[in-house]
Amino acid sequence: MEKSYQSSPLGQEISCVIGNIKKEILLNTEALILELKKILEQEGFKILDIASHKFTPQGFTVFALLGESHATIHTYPEYSSCYFSIYSCRGPTDAEKTFEKIKNYLGSEKIIFLNKNLIPVKK
Amino acid sequence: MEKSYQSSPLGQEISCVIGNIKKEILLNTEALILELKKILEQEGFKILDIASHKFTPQGFTVFALLGESHATIHTYPEYSSCYFSIYSCRGPTDAEKTFEKIKNYLGSEKIIFLNKNLIPVKK
Repeated sequence: MEKSYQSSPLGQEISCVIGNIKKEILLNTEALILELKKILEQEGFKILDIASHKFTPQGFTVFALLGESHATIHTYPEYSSCYFSIYSCRGPTDAEKTFEKIKNYLGSEKIIFLNKNLIPVKK
Repeated sequence: MEKSYQSSPLGQEISCVIGNIKKEILLNTEALILELKKILEQEGFKILDIASHKFTPQGFTVFALLGESHATIHTYPEYSSCYFSIYSCRGPTDAEKTFEKIKNYLGSEKIIFLNKNLIPVKK
């Protein structure tokens, strides 16, 4: 018998570039991974896998594969900035709180949204 | 001596939901991973890590961590659709060809763009 699971038809993607971040926050990549994990868990996301990479001489990428899709950060210390994105297929405003918490951790209000509050219809 | 590396100030993110995809394409997850890897390599991206997960009873996620940022696919067989996104920090039109090749492989022109041709300025 085929199971009748159907995911939510609505999800949310937020992606942005955040500037004016203190260098010590961007360069402490271990703390950045721990903070991302903590925030995702607080928001009820199931972390299936975490992958990260430190670039030479600088820059860092972390990616979290979620039961509800994904979240990722790419840092650019040379610009005091990072890219952040989260996509959740759980519901239409599901990524908001995670974005707010990441922004608060990074300590900056200089944000260029690439995509926010657009609701993908999967059909 | 500190090295003077500076990444491109411009990048490109394309993210979309693609519908009307044949079930056999969405369900052949091994082929989907191979195709994503092949296309990324053809486009000169350096794949640092690949993570994937099959959901029960259906649905599949694959994520490629790139030297130039990331690409990801989440499938929704129950809607005959998938989410695709690529972010490249290499340049302002750098993700176009990868998107076109993925679209051709999936065999559908029913696309809802969440974000396309927006150029993040890292500064």
